[in-house]
This record gives sequence, C-alpha cells and structure tokens, in this order.
Amino acid sequence: MDMIQSLNWRYATKKMDPSKVVPQDKVERILEAVRLTPTSSGLQPFDVIVVTNGEVREKIKVIANGQGQVTDCSHLLVFAAWDDYTPERINVMFDLVNAERGFINKDRESYRNMLLGRYPGRGPEVNFQHAAKQAYIGLGFALIAAAFEQVDSTPMEGFDPDALDELLNLRSRGLRSVLIMPLGYRDAEQDWLVNLKKVRRSHDRFVTEIK
Amino acid sequence: MDMIQSLNWRYATKKMDPSKVVPQDKVERILEAVRLTPTSSGLQPFDVIVVTNGEVREKIKVIANGQGQVTDCSHLLVFAAWDDYTPERINVMFDLVNAERGFINKDRESYRNMLLGRYPGRGPEVNFQHAAKQAYIGLGFALIAAAFEQVDSTPMEGFDPDALDELLNLRSRGLRSVLIMPLGYRDAEQDWLVNLKKVRRSHDRFVTEIK
Repeated sequence: MDMIQSLNWRYATKKMDPSKVVPQDKVERILEAVRLTPTSSGLQPFDVIVVTNGEVREKIKVIANGQGQVTDCSHLLVFAAWDDYTPERINVMFDLVNAERGFINKDRESYRNMLLGRYPGRGPEVNFQHAAKQAYIGLGFALIAAAFEQVDSTPMEGFDPDALDELLNLRSRGLRSVLIMPLGYRDAEQDWLVNLKKVRRSHDRFVTEIK
Repeated sequence: MDMIQSLNWRYATKKMDPSKVVPQDKVERILEAVRLTPTSSGLQPFDVIVVTNGEVREKIKVIANGQGQVTDCSHLLVFAAWDDYTPERINVMFDLVNAERGFINKDRESYRNMLLGRYPGRGPEVNFQHAAKQAYIGLGFALIAAAFEQVDSTPMEGFDPDALDELLNLRSRGLRSVLIMPLGYRDAEQDWLVNLKKVRRSHDRFVTEIK
C-alpha cells in the first residue's frame, strides 16, 4: 500500500474491537515517528503520554463525551503541550543540540538569545497556543504512521482538557492536554463510518495556483 | 526507505538548489496527501496555495526574513486557514458530505446543528486559531509526503502573515496565512545543516506510560 492508499484506508474509526491489541513494535514505530516530528525552532514543546491502564481510560472516557474508542482501543495517546516557553526549557533544548552535535554554533547561539529575549515575555497563553500547534504536527505524523502500520486511530479534540490535566497530573509537569488519539483495530461490523465515502473538497476547490 | 528512514532523511533544508524542479507528479501526490488530511469535524478549514511564480516568490522572500528557500525552491506551498467558522462554511461542508454519500444521516445533522449553534458565536479570533491548528495537521501530512517522494522541504512560521495575506489577497477570500513550505532539492554542498545530527529528546524524555 503506498502513501495515498494508506491515507484513503485510514478514517476516524468510530468503533474499535476491544479484544485486539496493537503489537508493541507497531506502537513504538508510531511513537518514533511522533518523536521525529519537526517543531518550531526545534523546541519539541510537547510530550506524549501512552495510557494502557484500563481504569484510567474509563475515567478519560467520561471526560471525553463517552467516546467508546477511549476504552476499546489498546493504547491511548495523549498529546500534552508545554504550558509556557520558559528560559529553562529553551536552554535545555539548545544545550541538548550542542551536546549531541559536539560543538557550539555561533548563529544558533544568536538564535537562542533571540528566542530567550522574545518568547518568555509573550506570556503563557500565547506560548501554550504556539506549543499546542506543534502538537498538531505531531498528530499528523502519528496519523500517517498508524496508517502505514495498518493500525486504526481516531484523532480527538472532544474532551475536557482541564479535567484530563487534573486526572493525569499534567499541570504539575508544566503540560496541558491538547489532543488524544486511540490506537486500535476497527470493529468493521459495528462501525457506521467504515464503509462510507471519505469526503474532502475537490483538488480544484482546495488548491490555488499562482504561476 | 521505510517511514522512519524517510523521517530521518528529511530535515529543514536550509539551502536549496534553484536549478532543480520538483516533478509535477510528485507535487500532486504531496498535495493529495494534504487534501486527505483529517480535520476537526471534517470541516477542512484551510486552503493550500501553490506559488511557482518567481516575482511573487521574490516578494514573499522579503516578508519571510529573506529566507532563500522561498526563491530557491520550485514550489512554495502556503497554508491559509479560514478567518472564521461561518454558518455558510459549515453548511457547505455538511451539504457536500450528504451529496457525496447520497443520503442524510440524522446524527450528522444533529452534529451540524450543534456546530452551527456553537462555532459562529465563539468569534473570529477563536475560530481562526482553531482552523489554523488544523492547517498544522496538514503541514505534518505535507512533510511526510514530501519525505516519501524524496523531495526536500522546509516548514516555516517565520514570515509576516499580514503582509502575505495582503500580497496574495487572502483576506478577501476569508483566509489568513499560517504556514509556508518550500518544496525543492537540497544543495548539499552549501547547506550547513545537511550533515549535522538530527536532535530530539530521547524516547524516555518524550514518552510517559501509564500502565
């Protein structure tokens, strides 16, 4: 299956088969794709929490409008973005790059100082929203990686983020939940969406060219 | 090259070779991947503008901090999100789904009415920010699709969106620019980043498990 076929195969799975478990090697490759997601200035301002615990997922289902995939999946990914860009966080990432590459690049140090001068002063809400957008790139990577592994998934914004932050104790880690994504296998016989046509605007109504 | 290899191959290309042009079939497959991007409630609240015109790209370069990839690439993708969720836009998309699938689903009609009751009243800024996040999923799809095609790309937030909106006359179309992404081919001899190690936080510092 090539990429376009995989993207047509995937869909926002509405009913998953709770008896099926995604093999660990597939989960690891999906997580590795998300880890490799490029982010603004390379700051990687989000974490992924993988919830397999059944009791915790039952609680998450309650604060996710009762969506059954949360408990019918085998692995629930939670994308949680930084609540702020602090100097410490910016420095940790720039220091990591220097350590891994084994040298200090003057232009990158100037860039670090520009970010240190600009980001913290924007305030936590602006910074969180910016970090959250980077998590959406990560969601895109997770969706395609899952499709390539022939693993079903459902991207979800429909949950109470404050309640999830409290349940998973995210705020104490400087994180705020942004997206959740169950990984599992479709229950084709009970999923109303599985056989319906995928609908998108046509190419001509989606793409404009300036030649 | 498998998916993880492709994601390690790609990088935010800093110097592109202006003599090389991405073949049209590759551009089309990248755009098709973006078109297939899943978005919140299936509303697809962004457009892609493909700029090949050299004069226009020269002007964009000026408002994109002089970044050379804008003119050294062969195709510049502009991701532009809806400036608002209006009742008309919501209805167009729900009507399209009904027309393409050939029937009306009562639950989806209830869902449409819920969105109509909730989204327009949130105001254009909240709605634009929400639409912009969906464009970031599309960016993720574009990045992976380009990597699979062995096409280089550079995701960019670093430009003046208001100036780009004016240059491309986006506001009159109800759009606001969010991201730009040159597609082209690396000039490996002149790119300072091409041989440097890709740095991400380690798996253990990126992923938490709740078992």
